[in-house]
Amino acid sequence: MLLRLAVCGLALLSLSAQDRVDLQVVQQIKAEAYERSKVMETLAGLTDRYGPRLTGSPEAREAADWASKRLISWGVQNVHLEKWGPFGRAWSVEQYAVEMVEPRYALLTAMPLAWSGGTNGAVTGEVIQAVFRDSYNPKKMAEELAKFKEKYKGKLRGKVVLLNPVQDLSPSTQGLVKRYTDAELADMAKAVGPTAKVGYDPAKTEVPEEPEKLGPFFNSLNVKGIETFIAQLYGLRGERAKFLKDEGAVAVFTADGRARDGRTAAEQAGRQEAEFPMGPPSFVVTAEHYNRLVRLAESGTAPKVRVMLKVKTEEKVDSFNLVGELPGGAKKDELVMVGAHFDSWHAGTGATDNGAGSAVMMEVVRILKSLNLKLDRTVRLVLWTGEEQGLLGSIAYVKEHFADPKTMQLTSEHGRMSGYFNLDNGAGKIRGVYVENNDAMKPVFEQWLAPFRDMGVSTVTLRTTGGTDHLAFDAVGLPGFQFIQDPLDYGSVTHHGNMDVYDHVPADDLKQASAVIASVVYHAATRAEMLPRKALPKPAE
Amino acid sequence: MLLRLAVCGLALLSLSAQDRVDLQVVQQIKAEAYERSKVMETLAGLTDRYGPRLTGSPEAREAADWASKRLISWGVQNVHLEKWGPFGRAWSVEQYAVEMVEPRYALLTAMPLAWSGGTNGAVTGEVIQAVFRDSYNPKKMAEELAKFKEKYKGKLRGKVVLLNPVQDLSPSTQGLVKRYTDAELADMAKAVGPTAKVGYDPAKTEVPEEPEKLGPFFNSLNVKGIETFIAQLYGLRGERAKFLKDEGAVAVFTADGRARDGRTAAEQAGRQEAEFPMGPPSFVVTAEHYNRLVRLAESGTAPKVRVMLKVKTEEKVDSFNLVGELPGGAKKDELVMVGAHFDSWHAGTGATDNGAGSAVMMEVVRILKSLNLKLDRTVRLVLWTGEEQGLLGSIAYVKEHFADPKTMQLTSEHGRMSGYFNLDNGAGKIRGVYVENNDAMKPVFEQWLAPFRDMGVSTVTLRTTGGTDHLAFDAVGLPGFQFIQDPLDYGSVTHHGNMDVYDHVPADDLKQASAVIASVVYHAATRAEMLPRKALPKPAE
Repeated sequence: MLLRLAVCGLALLSLSAQDRVDLQVVQQIKAEAYERSKVMETLAGLTDRYGPRLTGSPEAREAADWASKRLISWGVQNVHLEKWGPFGRAWSVEQYAVEMVEPRYALLTAMPLAWSGGTNGAVTGEVIQAVFRDSYNPKKMAEELAKFKEKYKGKLRGKVVLLNPVQDLSPSTQGLVKRYTDAELADMAKAVGPTAKVGYDPAKTEVPEEPEKLGPFFNSLNVKGIETFIAQLYGLRGERAKFLKDEGAVAVFTADGRARDGRTAAEQAGRQEAEFPMGPPSFVVTAEHYNRLVRLAESGTAPKVRVMLKVKTEEKVDSFNLVGELPGGAKKDELVMVGAHFDSWHAGTGATDNGAGSAVMMEVVRILKSLNLKLDRTVRLVLWTGEEQGLLGSIAYVKEHFADPKTMQLTSEHGRMSGYFNLDNGAGKIRGVYVENNDAMKPVFEQWLAPFRDMGVSTVTLRTTGGTDHLAFDAVGLPGFQFIQDPLDYGSVTHHGNMDVYDHVPADDLKQASAVIASVVYHAATRAEMLPRKALPKPAE
Repeated sequence: MLLRLAVCGLALLSLSAQDRVDLQVVQQIKAEAYERSKVMETLAGLTDRYGPRLTGSPEAREAADWASKRLISWGVQNVHLEKWGPFGRAWSVEQYAVEMVEPRYALLTAMPLAWSGGTNGAVTGEVIQAVFRDSYNPKKMAEELAKFKEKYKGKLRGKVVLLNPVQDLSPSTQGLVKRYTDAELADMAKAVGPTAKVGYDPAKTEVPEEPEKLGPFFNSLNVKGIETFIAQLYGLRGERAKFLKDEGAVAVFTADGRARDGRTAAEQAGRQEAEFPMGPPSFVVTAEHYNRLVRLAESGTAPKVRVMLKVKTEEKVDSFNLVGELPGGAKKDELVMVGAHFDSWHAGTGATDNGAGSAVMMEVVRILKSLNLKLDRTVRLVLWTGEEQGLLGSIAYVKEHFADPKTMQLTSEHGRMSGYFNLDNGAGKIRGVYVENNDAMKPVFEQWLAPFRDMGVSTVTLRTTGGTDHLAFDAVGLPGFQFIQDPLDYGSVTHHGNMDVYDHVPADDLKQASAVIASVVYHAATRAEMLPRKALPKPAE
C-alpha cells in the first residue's frame, strides 16, 4: 500500500515539474479577462457589424479585414490572410421575401439555402407536395432520388415544391438552455477505449439511418472520410436541385428540425464549387408556416406563394485563413497554436457558430499581449474559413504547413509544432477538454485546468470529439484539442439558425473561456518540452 | 358536533338531488368528443384557412361566414351574425417587409402594429434611438410623453425611430411549455375572500408600475373600468403616434417582452376608432434584431432600414357576434350560454387566442346536437368579436339582451338566462373553473366536474379571473364563468404573437375541453332550477 502510494507520488512529482501552474500568472490572466474584457466588443464587430461571414463571400472578407486591424491595434504581429483555394462560388443574399398570397396574405418566416439561384424579380406559384424522404445514407438517398424523379417528372413546372412531410411539433417541457450537470460531466470523463478514425468508402461504408447513431458515425470519420462523405452527400443534393430546376420548379421549400417556433436554420442547397450549377431558389420555412402550407394543400386549397431572392455571386474565388502571432523568446521557432473557425452560415450573424470562438481566441492573444507575459514559444492564432463546408481551411493549412495526411511527408514545421487548441462548440463556458486518446496529455491538462475548477472546469476526458478543426491537426499526428463547453441553446436554438446572433452569447461564458484558454496557452508556450504526441498515423487512403 | 355533521349531510343531499351527473351521458359525450372529434378540423378552418381574424377586418367576416356554414351543416339552429357597432376602422395587412440595408442586408423579423398607417412604397431611413419609457400608468405615460415631445421635437424627420432601450435576453433554463402541478392547483383552490370589481377613475386611480402588480390590478376592474382604462391608455399611445407622424418619422420600431427568440407579438399602434388618425408605420421587431439595431446605432454605425407596409382600410365599420342555438324543450325560453371570442390579433392566425376556444365551443354544440341529447333549456352559442379591444362584443351583447350595467334596468331575458360558460385562456386542457365568488356555484361545479377528475379536472375555486368575456355577464349579475386551463406555451410563446398558430394547439387538450364543457352545458340545460346567482350589482358609475 505504502509502496504504491510512493510510486503514485513520484509519477505526479515528475509531471508537476514542468506542468506546475504559475498561479500569479493565472491571477493576472483572470483579472485581464474579467475586468478589462474586450471579448463582447469583438463579438459585436464580428456579428452585428460584419456578420454573417459565409465562406467566399465579400462580407467574410470585410469581417476579416476588420478583425485583422483589431489584432494589429493590440500589437499582434505578422497579421495577414493566408490564401487557400479555389473555394468555389462566392454567394451572398442581397434581398429576399417569401409570402403566402392566397388564400390569405402572410409573410412566411423562411431563409434561403446557400448557393440557391435567385429569382427573376418576384415570382408566384401554387404549392405542390412532392415528398422526398431525406437521408444521410447516400445509398438510400440515391434510391429515393431515382423514385422521386420518376414520380414527379413533368409535374413541377411553375410550382413551389414542398419537399418534406408535415413536421411534428409536439410541445416539449424541456428548457431550451442547458448547462452540463456534474453527473453528465462525470459520465463524459469515462474513457471508452481508443478508436482510430476511419475513412469513408462511398461504395462500402454503411451510413446509419437512426438519428442517434449519426453523431457517433460522423465522429468516427477521419478528415479524408469527412471530405469524401460530404462530397457525395452534397453531390446528391445538387443532383436533386438540378432535377427540380430542370423541371421548372419556381422554388423549393424544405423543413428542418431546428427551424420551428418561428426560427429558421439553413445550410446549403448544393455544392459550392463553381462547376456545379446553382439550383432553384430554395428556402427553409419555419415548421409552423411550412405545416400550414402542407395542410392547406392537403385540404384542397392549394396556397399560392410569392418568392423573391436576389443573390450576389462570383464564379470562382479563393478563401483565406486569418493569421496573427505573438512572437516567442527562447524557443521562438516552436509553435503553440490557437484557432477557431471564422466563417459562419448566413441565416444569423454567426455568433455562437463561431463568432464566439473567434472572439475568444482573439481575446486570448490580446490578454497574453497586454499582460506582456514572457512566452518561450511563438503563439500563432489562426481563424479558419470553409469549416462549414468540411474543415476546408484548416485541412488546407495543415497540408501546406505540416503534412499531407495522404502521404504523411512531414515538413520541418511539423517537428516544431507543439499543439493546437480549438474552440467551436457554441458560446458556453469551458467545462473541460477532450484529449483525443492522447494519454500523456491527460495529466498535463489536469494540472493546467486545476486552478479553474471553481469556475466549473472539471473534466479531462480521453474521449475524442469531432466536427471541427482540431481534426485536421490530429490527422497528421499533431496534438489538437477541442474544449468541452456548456451547450446553452446551441443545439435547441442557435445552431446554423437565424437566431445565431449576439444576444444568444452570454458575456460571462466568453470571459471564462478567454481566461481558461489564455492560461492553457501561456503554460503550453512556456513548458520545458513540447507537448507529448500520439504515434504518427499511417498515410490515409 | 353531531348536529353540525347532520346539517352538512343535508346540505350535500339537497345539492345532489338536482346536480347528480348522468354518467351514461358523460360516457356518450366523451366518446363523441374523442372518437369522432371535429375540433382540429374546425381549428384548421379558423386559423390556416381563414385566420387571422382581427375585429372589423373582412377576413374576420369571411371566417365567421365559414363557421356559420359549418354550424348549420351540423344542424345548429338560428345561426346568424348579430351586429354591434360602430367598431371603428377596418384594417388588414396586404403586404409588408422590414429590412436592414446598411451596413449589412438582413430581413428583420418584425410585425406591424394594428391600425398603423402604410408607407408609400418602400421607404428607407436611418435609425435613431428615442427612448420612451413605456408605462401602464397613464399619469407616468403622460409625463413621459411631455418630456419625449420636448426632447425629440424637430429631430425625427426621415428617421426610423427605435422607441425602446436594448432588451434583456438573459437565457432562461425554464421550459416554454407548462402544465399546472397539483401544488399550484391546490394553491389556486384557496379562496382569497370576495373583492368587488371596481371602476377606473382616470384622475384618481393609481395604476401600479410593478409588473407583478399589473395582473391583479387589471383583474380588479369592472367592465366599465376596463373600458375607461383602455380608452385612456390607447388614447395616450395614439397621441404619441400622432407626434411621431407629425414629426415626419419614416417608421417606429418597438420591442416587446414576448417578441424574442425570433418571434414577434403585436397589438395595436393607437385607437381603432375612425375619428383617430392612423399613426406612422409601426412595427414590433424581435428583440435580437431590435438589439442589433440599437447596438449598431450606439457604436456609431447608424444602420439604414427599408420599410414597406401596405394596409387595406375602411373608415367606419360595424362588427358582429356569431350566434347559434340548440333549441330547448320543456324550458325552451330559458337560456344556457356558451361562448368564446372569435376575433384575434393579426400576427399569427389566432389559434390559441382564441381559435381554440371558438373551435371547442363549436364542438360543444356539435357534440350535444349529434348525440341528440334532450335539452330542457335552449343552449345558445355566441362567438364574440372586439374582445381584444376591450370585450366590446360581449359588452354590447349583454347590454342589448340583458342589462346595461350603468342603469341595471333588466330585460325579461335577464330573468330567463341561467348561466354563461367561457373559454379563452389558450389551448390548454381544463383543470377546473373560477366560480367568481358565487359560493352557491361551488358545490354545483364540484359535482359536475367530478367525473372528469381522472382527466385532470380537479379545482373549483371561489376566486375570480379577468380579462375575458364572462366579465360582461358578471357585471350585470348573471352567472358567468371562465375555466382554469393549463398554460402550455400561451404566456411564453403564443400570446398575441406570430407563433399563435395551429401547431401550438394540442389536439388532446381541445378534445378534453370539448368533453368537459359539453357535459357541463348538458347538466346546466337539464338542471331542475336555473343556476344560483350572486346578489345583483348596483348600477356602475
